[in-house]
Amino acid sequence: MIKAGIIGGAGYTAGELIRILLNHPDAEIDFVYSTSQPGKAVSTIHQDLAGETDLKFTDAINKEADVVFLCLGHGNSKKFLSENQFSDNTKIVDLSTDFRMSGDHEFVYGLPEFNKKEIQSAKNIANPGCFATAISLAILPLAKTGKLKDDWHVNAVTGATGAGTSLSETTHFTWRDNNFSSYKSFGHQHLNEIGQSLKKLQPSYEGEVNFIPNRGNFSRGIHATAYTKYEGSLEEASEIYSEVYKDAVFTHLVDGELHLKQVVNTNKCLLKLEKFDNKILVTSIIDNLLKGASGQAVQNMNIMFGFEESAGLKLKANYF
Amino acid sequence: MIKAGIIGGAGYTAGELIRILLNHPDAEIDFVYSTSQPGKAVSTIHQDLAGETDLKFTDAINKEADVVFLCLGHGNSKKFLSENQFSDNTKIVDLSTDFRMSGDHEFVYGLPEFNKKEIQSAKNIANPGCFATAISLAILPLAKTGKLKDDWHVNAVTGATGAGTSLSETTHFTWRDNNFSSYKSFGHQHLNEIGQSLKKLQPSYEGEVNFIPNRGNFSRGIHATAYTKYEGSLEEASEIYSEVYKDAVFTHLVDGELHLKQVVNTNKCLLKLEKFDNKILVTSIIDNLLKGASGQAVQNMNIMFGFEESAGLKLKANYF
Amino acid sequence: MIKAGIIGGAGYTAGELIRILLNHPDAEIDFVYSTSQPGKAVSTIHQDLAGETDLKFTDAINKEADVVFLCLGHGNSKKFLSENQFSDNTKIVDLSTDFRMSGDHEFVYGLPEFNKKEIQSAKNIANPGCFATAISLAILPLAKTGKLKDDWHVNAVTGATGAGTSLSETTHFTWRDNNFSSYKSFGHQHLNEIGQSLKKLQPSYEGEVNFIPNRGNFSRGIHATAYTKYEGSLEEASEIYSEVYKDAVFTHLVDGELHLKQVVNTNKCLLKLEKFDNKILVTSIIDNLLKGASGQAVQNMNIMFGFEESAGLKLKANYF
Amino acid sequence: MIKAGIIGGAGYTAGELIRILLNHPDAEIDFVYSTSQPGKAVSTIHQDLAGETDLKFTDAINKEADVVFLCLGHGNSKKFLSENQFSDNTKIVDLSTDFRMSGDHEFVYGLPEFNKKEIQSAKNIANPGCFATAISLAILPLAKTGKLKDDWHVNAVTGATGAGTSLSETTHFTWRDNNFSSYKSFGHQHLNEIGQSLKKLQPSYEGEVNFIPNRGNFSRGIHATAYTKYEGSLEEASEIYSEVYKDAVFTHLVDGELHLKQVVNTNKCLLKLEKFDNKILVTSIIDNLLKGASGQAVQNMNIMFGFEESAGLKLKANYF
Repeated sequence: MIKAGIIGGAGYTAGELIRILLNHPDAEIDFVYSTSQPGKAVSTIHQDLAGETDLKFTDAINKEADVVFLCLGHGNSKKFLSENQFSDNTKIVDLSTDFRMSGDHEFVYGLPEFNKKEIQSAKNIANPGCFATAISLAILPLAKTGKLKDDWHVNAVTGATGAGTSLSETTHFTWRDNNFSSYKSFGHQHLNEIGQSLKKLQPSYEGEVNFIPNRGNFSRGIHATAYTKYEGSLEEASEIYSEVYKDAVFTHLVDGELHLKQVVNTNKCLLKLEKFDNKILVTSIIDNLLKGASGQAVQNMNIMFGFEESAGLKLKANYF
Repeated sequence: MIKAGIIGGAGYTAGELIRILLNHPDAEIDFVYSTSQPGKAVSTIHQDLAGETDLKFTDAINKEADVVFLCLGHGNSKKFLSENQFSDNTKIVDLSTDFRMSGDHEFVYGLPEFNKKEIQSAKNIANPGCFATAISLAILPLAKTGKLKDDWHVNAVTGATGAGTSLSETTHFTWRDNNFSSYKSFGHQHLNEIGQSLKKLQPSYEGEVNFIPNRGNFSRGIHATAYTKYEGSLEEASEIYSEVYKDAVFTHLVDGELHLKQVVNTNKCLLKLEKFDNKILVTSIIDNLLKGASGQAVQNMNIMFGFEESAGLKLKANYF
Repeated sequence: MIKAGIIGGAGYTAGELIRILLNHPDAEIDFVYSTSQPGKAVSTIHQDLAGETDLKFTDAINKEADVVFLCLGHGNSKKFLSENQFSDNTKIVDLSTDFRMSGDHEFVYGLPEFNKKEIQSAKNIANPGCFATAISLAILPLAKTGKLKDDWHVNAVTGATGAGTSLSETTHFTWRDNNFSSYKSFGHQHLNEIGQSLKKLQPSYEGEVNFIPNRGNFSRGIHATAYTKYEGSLEEASEIYSEVYKDAVFTHLVDGELHLKQVVNTNKCLLKLEKFDNKILVTSIIDNLLKGASGQAVQNMNIMFGFEESAGLKLKANYF
Repeated sequence: MIKAGIIGGAGYTAGELIRILLNHPDAEIDFVYSTSQPGKAVSTIHQDLAGETDLKFTDAINKEADVVFLCLGHGNSKKFLSENQFSDNTKIVDLSTDFRMSGDHEFVYGLPEFNKKEIQSAKNIANPGCFATAISLAILPLAKTGKLKDDWHVNAVTGATGAGTSLSETTHFTWRDNNFSSYKSFGHQHLNEIGQSLKKLQPSYEGEVNFIPNRGNFSRGIHATAYTKYEGSLEEASEIYSEVYKDAVFTHLVDGELHLKQVVNTNKCLLKLEKFDNKILVTSIIDNLLKGASGQAVQNMNIMFGFEESAGLKLKANYF
């Protein structure tokens, strides 16, 4: 049993980590750090845990924890690590954007379908963004085989948990219920990490990823469609994707219809390929809080520590 | 054309008043008073009005307006009227709780189905609460005929607009979506005005109104069920309700199934009567922002000024 | 008062027509034809009408009606008109796809923003499709000025009423609630009428309209984003759109944020323009049952009969 | 590993059983019987299972299975068992109403909180109804201590999965979305099993359970409020409930606010006690498909076979 710490314990991704780790066969929660709630029972904030745990938030950190998850706002992970030191053996999984772009740091980009080997030996992980995960898993296989030539056109919709726990107009129920809207068109911050992965896999690629994000009136999940010009056949594309994901535990190609609730409350990514004239369309669905955040964080932990990759992540879909 | 002023123009009920009055055949909006938004276009807050009006919020009040609607938080209407004076001819319609209980003031309780005559000659109106409207219309007919003997058991569910525009945990989309909860059991503030109406109609009645309010995961509407012991037949009860509501423009007894969306975005109250052994069950549905607030406020205005009672209120249901 | 007949009275679009026409100042409902429900009160099917009308479905048709709305399944309008004859003065508004493509018939495509003159003198109207309306109003202004050069990339989401009243898996609540999915990618039937309008306005245009439709978990409304390469400035584009829509009663350009509920339960189309590098993005929102069907049908009737264009269509938005 | 069979595999409860049993440490799915889908992959119907299992529906039954779950429509379990025989060692868990009332059969009513000993030695289990579970867990503790004197007033709301997979008007998305309605007032079929449990625990009790069920616009879950006259203190009541549920694995008393999503996608029942004058109010929440059906069925299996009671049921809440 390894000991896990969670920093920033009151948000959505911390809650999901706690839910997963409480039932993990190889890890146990050592501490949940929250400067705003120290001493309070974790189940007063994550109220579904009533009856399941006596865990309390703490403002004390165990520097000897085996793994520490940073569930802090973007920009705050760097700051936190500059102010707090962990033992040399402590592995860090950061869920913010702070270390996703390569640079002067030791963090490996934690997209297991493409970086598994580096993750196995990583000390620290930069956990991918939610949109970045859904879109990267949709478009990277063609880059891996050097097949990309043209721009991608991506449209994706996310649930309200994507906006975090703070109250805002666009997460007010009376606004969001039965509503739909787009935002940050062509400028979403996750385009950086997607572009970095594309360049790494196919350095010659000069196309653009045109991405329009949308706010859906549901709480969990991302549904993304991505199309580009592609000269090969559907069969050829299917072979490429099947090959790329043949050992993937959570990412699968499906033949039938795709709809978001197939993956809600699971760590899966389901993909569907279609060909229309000279275009290939890839549809990709994930749960933004699991495969798009805390689930993938635990998957990365499992890989780093040599546990079964799906340990603690055999989650029952909500489905309805 | 009478001139109408709206005080507290940024909230839900003010928005609904503006929507109604913009198309009212006999009234026009003279000013929308808002201390927080003066100079701003009304359509920047009530964004569905884009393309329909150039109206701006103002912090100046026209003391000669024919009618003024107070859309202020509970407790603030009294304060506002003590600090601002209107002409002797100005009629006030207050949407808060401040003047609903009889006392040392000139406000008539504005439930047209029971107080029409007093409303016709009223100077000021205390507009009923939303739950109070739905429940009163369900239970008062039996009190009017002196038939009540036993306690009422009332359960009602309201949409998120019932909680007002301020952001709170229970109106956060991620909390409210697909959720359900009860609150203020046996202690909701609207019980006072309901009790007052019961006593006025059947002074001998000593029963209790046991009321559990609930938060539903929808934005608009109230669905209430109310039952009590009743010895008469269903036919007798139907005759009583039909007689009481025979001239009601918006309140109707129906035979078929009742479901909330029949009245959403209308000023109607639909009622259904059923008899089970020695109990009578009355189901009542309204739109909390219309018959439960701004629609009824305009209905009261229409009655006070001698307009057609449904003027401006022939609203198309949303239904879906 | 003209007399209006409705054929196929039990569906969503017929229900909306009835709701609108019951309060129309210049038209009255003469008959609602339904072979499945003759003799039944209209309010047993369109249950929000309880207390508002005693209208009954009939299987008899008045051949002398001034206007007849066909609310039949696609393919059935042609069949119905071949089996039923109306007077020479009767104007037909067909809501199906049957007459939208030019051909050997007398139907004018009823998109008032572009075809008003032809509509004024039309005998019969082919009412545009819902997606076609939202998308055409977004993209046609650039075609009108001959500015289009490149492909359009369109993504739109529709509510469950778009799928009609028949029960199906994807309109089952347990499936659709909190779900999202795409369908008919690159092959939606409305592309035909959009293409026809583009060609008519800019015959030289050879680009494609790449369109991915989606099913949203709401009941009403269409939200569409459309982008293409465009060399002009945002100001230039704004001038073009403003000029094209300067006399439009229901179609408006807005500056602020757009979100679907601004138009739900209204006959409006709101448009927003944005420029990103060499791309112009147009966001367009309508209510699929109103501007996308029955509202536009009444708008066309108003134009044909010389009524105020907004008669009966000054609808209060639901907004919440 | 015991071998489990599922009869009637295409419905909601069968889907939930499959989801649970796929990850159960002590049981494996031997067959999923479906006369309508033999040979088809289970994941074509329960589409969230894509990538998780190759299981196929079959029309062949293994008579030697250790446990068989009957997920058949009410009335069909009796018929099925009269036409199909299992080995003497096969235990049956029936999810229908067929064997819930005591009679000429060998089924034990499977409410573990009250019947654990009988379940341990049972051959067959009649799994309780969903409303019956939520309400029984709320009201039975007072009966167990002989404290009940007066009528119960119960109001509960259920999600759309409670109505089963068949398409119907009230589960059509356009009807149910943002809607609310009551049905079967005072006459729901689950009152029988609730009454039977009350009589068994407090034979002297003559009160009525007045129960109004409601349809909520969500997919999963039951929220129930139940109140009755009660002379004791809140502390006394809390002690009674705590004592009754002290060994319960899934049923817990909580102090804070209760809201439905605390239990959705879990096997838990959370209860809250409040006292108002002479009334005690008990609020009870469960997931209708888990603690109200398939989760409790597996809990009963665990108890019968001597497994850890929570085996396979440590489910991550969906929560959002």
